[in-house]
Amino acid sequence: MKTLYSIPLVTPGSAESFPAVSLSGPLPDGEWSVRTYTLRGGLQEGVQVVEVHNGRLSFAVLPTRGMGIWKGRCGKVRLGWDSPVKDPVNPAFINEQDRGGLGWLKGFNEWFVRCGLNSMGAPGMDTVLDYSGNPYQVPLTLHGKIANVPARSVSVEVTEEGICVRGEVDETMMFGPALRLNTEIKTSFASGAVSVADTVTNLGDNPVEHQMLYHINYGAPLLEKGSRIVAPFKQVAPRDPRSVEGIATHDLYGASEIGFVEQAYLYELAGKRGSRETLAMLRNAAGDLAALLRFSLKDFPCFTLWKNTAGTADGYVTGLEPATNYPNVRRFEREQGRVITLAGGDSRSTYLTLETLETRQAVKSAESEIAKLQETAKGIVHPEPVSSLSGS
Amino acid sequence: MKTLYSIPLVTPGSAESFPAVSLSGPLPDGEWSVRTYTLRGGLQEGVQVVEVHNGRLSFAVLPTRGMGIWKGRCGKVRLGWDSPVKDPVNPAFINEQDRGGLGWLKGFNEWFVRCGLNSMGAPGMDTVLDYSGNPYQVPLTLHGKIANVPARSVSVEVTEEGICVRGEVDETMMFGPALRLNTEIKTSFASGAVSVADTVTNLGDNPVEHQMLYHINYGAPLLEKGSRIVAPFKQVAPRDPRSVEGIATHDLYGASEIGFVEQAYLYELAGKRGSRETLAMLRNAAGDLAALLRFSLKDFPCFTLWKNTAGTADGYVTGLEPATNYPNVRRFEREQGRVITLAGGDSRSTYLTLETLETRQAVKSAESEIAKLQETAKGIVHPEPVSSLSGS
Amino acid sequence: MKTLYSIPLVTPGSAESFPAVSLSGPLPDGEWSVRTYTLRGGLQEGVQVVEVHNGRLSFAVLPTRGMGIWKGRCGKVRLGWDSPVKDPVNPAFINEQDRGGLGWLKGFNEWFVRCGLNSMGAPGMDTVLDYSGNPYQVPLTLHGKIANVPARSVSVEVTEEGICVRGEVDETMMFGPALRLNTEIKTSFASGAVSVADTVTNLGDNPVEHQMLYHINYGAPLLEKGSRIVAPFKQVAPRDPRSVEGIATHDLYGASEIGFVEQAYLYELAGKRGSRETLAMLRNAAGDLAALLRFSLKDFPCFTLWKNTAGTADGYVTGLEPATNYPNVRRFEREQGRVITLAGGDSRSTYLTLETLETRQAVKSAESEIAKLQETAKGIVHPEPVSSLSGS
Repeated sequence: MKTLYSIPLVTPGSAESFPAVSLSGPLPDGEWSVRTYTLRGGLQEGVQVVEVHNGRLSFAVLPTRGMGIWKGRCGKVRLGWDSPVKDPVNPAFINEQDRGGLGWLKGFNEWFVRCGLNSMGAPGMDTVLDYSGNPYQVPLTLHGKIANVPARSVSVEVTEEGICVRGEVDETMMFGPALRLNTEIKTSFASGAVSVADTVTNLGDNPVEHQMLYHINYGAPLLEKGSRIVAPFKQVAPRDPRSVEGIATHDLYGASEIGFVEQAYLYELAGKRGSRETLAMLRNAAGDLAALLRFSLKDFPCFTLWKNTAGTADGYVTGLEPATNYPNVRRFEREQGRVITLAGGDSRSTYLTLETLETRQAVKSAESEIAKLQETAKGIVHPEPVSSLSGS
Repeated sequence: MKTLYSIPLVTPGSAESFPAVSLSGPLPDGEWSVRTYTLRGGLQEGVQVVEVHNGRLSFAVLPTRGMGIWKGRCGKVRLGWDSPVKDPVNPAFINEQDRGGLGWLKGFNEWFVRCGLNSMGAPGMDTVLDYSGNPYQVPLTLHGKIANVPARSVSVEVTEEGICVRGEVDETMMFGPALRLNTEIKTSFASGAVSVADTVTNLGDNPVEHQMLYHINYGAPLLEKGSRIVAPFKQVAPRDPRSVEGIATHDLYGASEIGFVEQAYLYELAGKRGSRETLAMLRNAAGDLAALLRFSLKDFPCFTLWKNTAGTADGYVTGLEPATNYPNVRRFEREQGRVITLAGGDSRSTYLTLETLETRQAVKSAESEIAKLQETAKGIVHPEPVSSLSGS
Repeated sequence: MKTLYSIPLVTPGSAESFPAVSLSGPLPDGEWSVRTYTLRGGLQEGVQVVEVHNGRLSFAVLPTRGMGIWKGRCGKVRLGWDSPVKDPVNPAFINEQDRGGLGWLKGFNEWFVRCGLNSMGAPGMDTVLDYSGNPYQVPLTLHGKIANVPARSVSVEVTEEGICVRGEVDETMMFGPALRLNTEIKTSFASGAVSVADTVTNLGDNPVEHQMLYHINYGAPLLEKGSRIVAPFKQVAPRDPRSVEGIATHDLYGASEIGFVEQAYLYELAGKRGSRETLAMLRNAAGDLAALLRFSLKDFPCFTLWKNTAGTADGYVTGLEPATNYPNVRRFEREQGRVITLAGGDSRSTYLTLETLETRQAVKSAESEIAKLQETAKGIVHPEPVSSLSGS
């Protein structure tokens, strides 16, 4: 696979500013392009953007926000949502401890956001060790740090096959977790899919806890009245009393409703034997458009569905959330045995594909694939929170 | 009114750096100018400045600090004060939770600072709703967020009449207040006045609380031994026991006094019938210089006078503070029924003029105008804090 | 002493970006150079660097991090250490309140870091005064603010004798401590030494507490199994129970050991009569390399040795820490009468030299000098924490 371009964008120790790159090339059926720039002014000051267009699918990676993906578009389908937070926010302006540990929500507007690396989920007190090895209580903030750490190394490569953006993000400190994320965000020319291959490494000598959740978010047009989640599951349970109210329609979305209070459903998905590969799909009401996630339960054993069909100004949005555990407070997840520990120097790699389906046939085909997996599982719908799944 | 120049300075989604604009033009009696630049180095790194000179009055707007006004000058009269904080501070370096919620004071050195938008006043615990609609307690920090949010949209317009700086500042988050400030800071050529027309909009679907206070601050030469506040009032009360000590001279200033502890007086002003327009003036001892505020009690029903005649190095300064409520903790203001609620999508517009009076005659004329309004009101001076006014 | 170059790098009120300066000149035995640049990308975005090479010794000053010294090199000897924090971190990304007040550790990777100016040491609650002069409790964070304040004024001067970097750093706020650091970091051509002359001024009118500790840190090659601290002392005590375990070898270092928990020893050093000059040396196992500190006990009456011979990935490092007091919580240090108070307008100047010794002879000579001072002192080794020294 011949490399056409290989361009460093951010380099540790460098005094070079993020470059304004503009590359493009012909495709049988259009043109690919890569464009990089730095946003200026307001809370977006200094936010670096890598815009990738593979000829069919386009998306914008944000190195400054932990290599999240701001927004995408596949043909006419917008991938992302409308947050009350209008611009990508430079982490320099984020205080995660704001509003009782909910400061993360002041920068939340991306299509694809990683939560982690040392903690994620609801804010809450947890016990950590100080520099003398003594336990003490600290307030963990919502969804951890990684979305608010700028990447220390970023590059883009264009090959004969497609485009790959690579990034390295350090969530480290002295006397605390020292975790490094290496990501490859890759797409083939003219494809409707983008893949995210992440490796998280414990740079330290001692074991450290690791949590990761991909917060993958959609508003219109994929989310609308009558949209559905289709995923093969062994069991699903509501997260809390509010979610109990909607368990009968856990897989179905309503119209935008001002004042709607979020609901969350915790799934144990079914996967293929051996590879444990699975898939989860958000399809529109007509069944001719869908977002499809493919991943292995080895990488992401827990899947959470976040339904926030609130008013459009407040954020009409749903989140599909493959993760190492459920987004409860870390203390609870630890008690349930769901928090991963990485030994000193150890790495953990994961792989996930985000696909856009633009035809009724493609949606049907995915539905069949899911139905086949569903046959291997009972599909239990718990009416109440289940302690082995939930934190309530 | 013909537009001579209309120049965008900050644009959402733009990769253009804040430009260095330098405009000027002749006036019958001098020259007007607009000059923009970005401060570099130290805590001022990246702070954008828009310097406006109307031929007589000059002032420097700080888009990076929520469209506050750093300092001004009218003829020979300095408008502003000397804070221990020497440079304008980029909000990236401010942690509002510092020093028990007083971090705002690490950036406080402007002539004109807005406090708000969702909360302002003394720091203190208050109840808010989380993403599930459940109430929880959070520590609100001194004077809220807006002074530490960089404007996402800024432009300057020069017409045949004068100069206008416009800005848009978003204090938004997911699952929390989403308030937008749009401001027009306007001055006519050769005028001693600048007006601030603000509109605050609730971008969200649900009702949200809104507080706003203009912290308008003066040191020498307007503040000196024998300076006075002149304002038509129905009643005034000391904020706290310390302020009780000075109630007899609530309208009179002393010389700079090292160790002086601040005093604050809460006024219910009298306004014109119908328009409820009022005015408040800080005049020097000789009565030949003054700063005059004009506003409507419909916009700013509460007026607080902050007297901090401390040592010159600690900040010899007084604040004239028109506001939606008194700067007590929000919980208390809510109990008193003084906290505004904006329904989803609703806006609230306000207007205020800052005038500099440079002659004995102009001061006398304003005093007459105030005296006339005072005739309509009893001017009660409460010796002790009054619960309907104060939070002590 | 003729000035060859005098170059302002950061100037208050200036719109000039930090310049990329590149100066050099011949020396009898090589070349001196000064190079300045701004790091870009990741957490290092915007960090200014002043690299000084005197022909023998080189070091990199970080104006953006309170004029600390990132790393140095003398001949073949690396001065500094390997932290899990890989890049110099812009303070805009540091939240000192992170992880229960340990956020300072997210930027900790320098050779020479100042801790202070208003507080330093372990995090803990303390009483301060609010704007009304009322006492309230605030959580002080680890090692204070100064390492995370960008310098507001920076310049470099090259004379016929050597190179001097000057900086001014303001740790100020309204209604709180207003302390200014002025530093001169100076080195003579072809010397193995660099001196740090600091003046801290209380810009305010009222007395303010002041603490300062120099956290001077070394990993390999100066730190290795068999390295030793050599310093003349009247008494030494372990800081805490963990340090009690190692008191018998307080002056001797072990090899890197994964899981090693830090130890700290609090020294009362002996100094010369009158000048109270003293010295403290870290020498390698062979005794042919050393780092030597020279300072006066008038400036830094307290000396702490931090031994953290942990795994190399976690940070194999020792800190030599001359200070105004021991790095216990400020409340405790105040009770012990060790916290300095600066009256309004007062200044305090200190002087310290960091020397690198590269020959057995130079090390021996320093050892003799220390031995001579040791003769004047008993060298008491306390087996347990001593309340007059420790905070446990």
